[in-house]
Amino acid sequence: MESGPSGGSRPAEPGPRLRGLRGADAAASASSLSRFGAEAGCRAPAVAAVLPAGGSGERMGVPTPKQFCPILERPLISYTLQALERVSWIKDIIVAVTGENMETMKGIIQRYQHKRISLVEAGVTRHRSIFNGLKALAEDQPNCRLSKPEVVIIHDAVRPFVEEDVLLNVVTAAQEHGASGAIRPLVSTVISPSVDSCLDHSLERARYRASEMPQAFLFDVIYEAYQQCSDYDLEFGTECLHLALKYSHIKAKLVEGSPDLWKVTYKRDLYAAESIIKERISQQVCVVMDTKEDEEHVGRCLEEMLKTELNHIKVTSGQDLQQIIVEQCYNFVCMNVMTSDFEETQRLLNMLEESNLSILYPVVVISVHFLDYESVPFGQKMEKVMQIREFAKEAKKEIFYYLAFSYISHSYAVLISHATLLGPHCLHTPRMESTSATAWRNRSYEKV
Amino acid sequence: MESGPSGGSRPAEPGPRLRGLRGADAAASASSLSRFGAEAGCRAPAVAAVLPAGGSGERMGVPTPKQFCPILERPLISYTLQALERVSWIKDIIVAVTGENMETMKGIIQRYQHKRISLVEAGVTRHRSIFNGLKALAEDQPNCRLSKPEVVIIHDAVRPFVEEDVLLNVVTAAQEHGASGAIRPLVSTVISPSVDSCLDHSLERARYRASEMPQAFLFDVIYEAYQQCSDYDLEFGTECLHLALKYSHIKAKLVEGSPDLWKVTYKRDLYAAESIIKERISQQVCVVMDTKEDEEHVGRCLEEMLKTELNHIKVTSGQDLQQIIVEQCYNFVCMNVMTSDFEETQRLLNMLEESNLSILYPVVVISVHFLDYESVPFGQKMEKVMQIREFAKEAKKEIFYYLAFSYISHSYAVLISHATLLGPHCLHTPRMESTSATAWRNRSYEKV
Repeated sequence: MESGPSGGSRPAEPGPRLRGLRGADAAASASSLSRFGAEAGCRAPAVAAVLPAGGSGERMGVPTPKQFCPILERPLISYTLQALERVSWIKDIIVAVTGENMETMKGIIQRYQHKRISLVEAGVTRHRSIFNGLKALAEDQPNCRLSKPEVVIIHDAVRPFVEEDVLLNVVTAAQEHGASGAIRPLVSTVISPSVDSCLDHSLERARYRASEMPQAFLFDVIYEAYQQCSDYDLEFGTECLHLALKYSHIKAKLVEGSPDLWKVTYKRDLYAAESIIKERISQQVCVVMDTKEDEEHVGRCLEEMLKTELNHIKVTSGQDLQQIIVEQCYNFVCMNVMTSDFEETQRLLNMLEESNLSILYPVVVISVHFLDYESVPFGQKMEKVMQIREFAKEAKKEIFYYLAFSYISHSYAVLISHATLLGPHCLHTPRMESTSATAWRNRSYEKV
Repeated sequence: MESGPSGGSRPAEPGPRLRGLRGADAAASASSLSRFGAEAGCRAPAVAAVLPAGGSGERMGVPTPKQFCPILERPLISYTLQALERVSWIKDIIVAVTGENMETMKGIIQRYQHKRISLVEAGVTRHRSIFNGLKALAEDQPNCRLSKPEVVIIHDAVRPFVEEDVLLNVVTAAQEHGASGAIRPLVSTVISPSVDSCLDHSLERARYRASEMPQAFLFDVIYEAYQQCSDYDLEFGTECLHLALKYSHIKAKLVEGSPDLWKVTYKRDLYAAESIIKERISQQVCVVMDTKEDEEHVGRCLEEMLKTELNHIKVTSGQDLQQIIVEQCYNFVCMNVMTSDFEETQRLLNMLEESNLSILYPVVVISVHFLDYESVPFGQKMEKVMQIREFAKEAKKEIFYYLAFSYISHSYAVLISHATLLGPHCLHTPRMESTSATAWRNRSYEKV
């Protein structure tokens, strides 16, 4: 579990390997803190983040503001908060939400156990919301819990995939230049229409960039800029870098961002975000054997099968399960070689429940039982199947998974943690490896 | 089935209601043809389309060029071709592909039975590919099958969701102004970096637009522009509207496009495209009763349940099945009230197979059997289950679906067309309606 202020009573985020993120656990955060010295020739600054989240998301074409749209049943903004709070050197995260969404936001923070979050009232425009966030951080405010940071990160609530390295890069550049922002190449050519909506001229794509988030500023630079802002700026402007240039005469340093920085704008972006999250939590699996003896045989053979589909497979006879859970593995296969009862599976389920692992993401457990279905009579076979189903129903009740059964090759019976994950086509398939992997990818959250 | 040149031996596209597209069947095409007169004060022009498809898709981060990346196992470009060929007034579609992908492309055209397609060799850049396409259409070319159109549409192979109305709008505007292109609002602020990659200035977002596809031109206007193009234009340019302005002095008319015009650029866009397609083919279901008597009871009750999840539910006792299949319904529920055998389901499966409906999209069939599982003894119950499974396996072999069984409430036995569609959690759920609808949405294409 992540230590330090960004930790808490639940795992904060899948482990780095699993997530493919650099420096996302406490250790990495610490090491990247030290990079401040190396990269910018200065000590680690006090850093806070401001997240404007007052938008209505009309472009999404859904009634819910997009930052509250659910992905795997969890609101989008919770993923963004998670991405920021796992960075231990971000001391405070200020979220600006409208009065009507204040209670919703408090509920999200409580349910997903977010840390270091302060809420302020959003303004009617994005700039006014950011300004309110900055005011809350300024020393001259009554709010005594917050202290004025040296550097402030401004990010969007609807860019959930921001990684620590880009946050570090903009903060470091802001320390040096006063202001910094992430940029991306333009996907489409930008054109200027004439009044009669005909083409006036088109811009040479190579000479321009899209300004994305996050951006970072020396606090005094951006706060002074906002204090000097005209109402026009606050009403119609969108670009903080522009304000820093216009009012504080700071030319922001531009930092190349990754494609993952993209902004969830349309409904299709929600689909894309969900698929990305599913892919990230589906890359690591732990195979738990109830015996050391057979490990080589069954465990390794399964490992070989799964290798083609997954990035990280760990085979264990259970002694280091706790650590594996702490490292945010979300996929487990229980290989019950010695016995056909559910002791081992139950033990794993209990550990998972205690760990709170399923607060942020669905967890998959596949329990494999060695039963020679060819040799046992039909009735007995079906009795076993019924037992498995009963166990599945029980487990489903006690924790937030659904369990169901299926067969796979070599007469295994398989229990899984979500019915839509390993469908009944396993009744017919000899290909556990791809079926399971598909299962992990298709994880879905329909309540039953 | 779609009539006219855009038709063929397979249904071209889900029906308008299902797809939510305007004028996508033959009738609508005809009616929109007549709109030429009304909207532009001129007769329907001869229209062809050019699709540059020579790109390597390096931004996708996958080895396959993005236009060939599979969505539900079908290459992206096939969806784009389908979107163009369903428009009956587009006479020819020229696709420019690299020599190494020529055979792949021919295979796609054959497998998905695309019509009115001609292939030309792509150039090393996008502009050179488009130029090659235009040359093939110019009268002075040896290729005699193609005739020079009055208006040519230029579209991207990686924008599969283009709708007929925007195609009509750009063609009409091109007839009037000589050139026309679809535009969209900018999502991000556009900035100009200085040489030291600091902010030089940012553009006022409201004054600019993103230039998207499709674009349309009077053929002579764009062909002459390409003939005058400098090598620099052909190597580094991307914007056809710019060439029309620079060399033919035509200020293109700009037409607001829909969000669906977006370009599949990154891997996340593939995820988004797949989800959009799944959603579109999951909105309509046909309930087939094997009796008229019980229709009111069971059929209507199921209709009521499904209403909350789906846009269009049609209950039939089978006489108009052929027409419903022709109208591109991809989801069926067979209610076997009178008998517990598979006659009715088999009949439907045969009709579906003859219709070639599953060439373009997966088809879902749920067969509901009335069996009082509470009253029959366990063994007999399981025998029935085994029969159902056998039938499922057979049907799976016959046609391109997977079948599997599950129970639902009221002691039904359920057969479905894809195992991951209606998972074994139905074994426990009393909620057929949402389970089925979820099933339809989760359609997945993993080969078993």
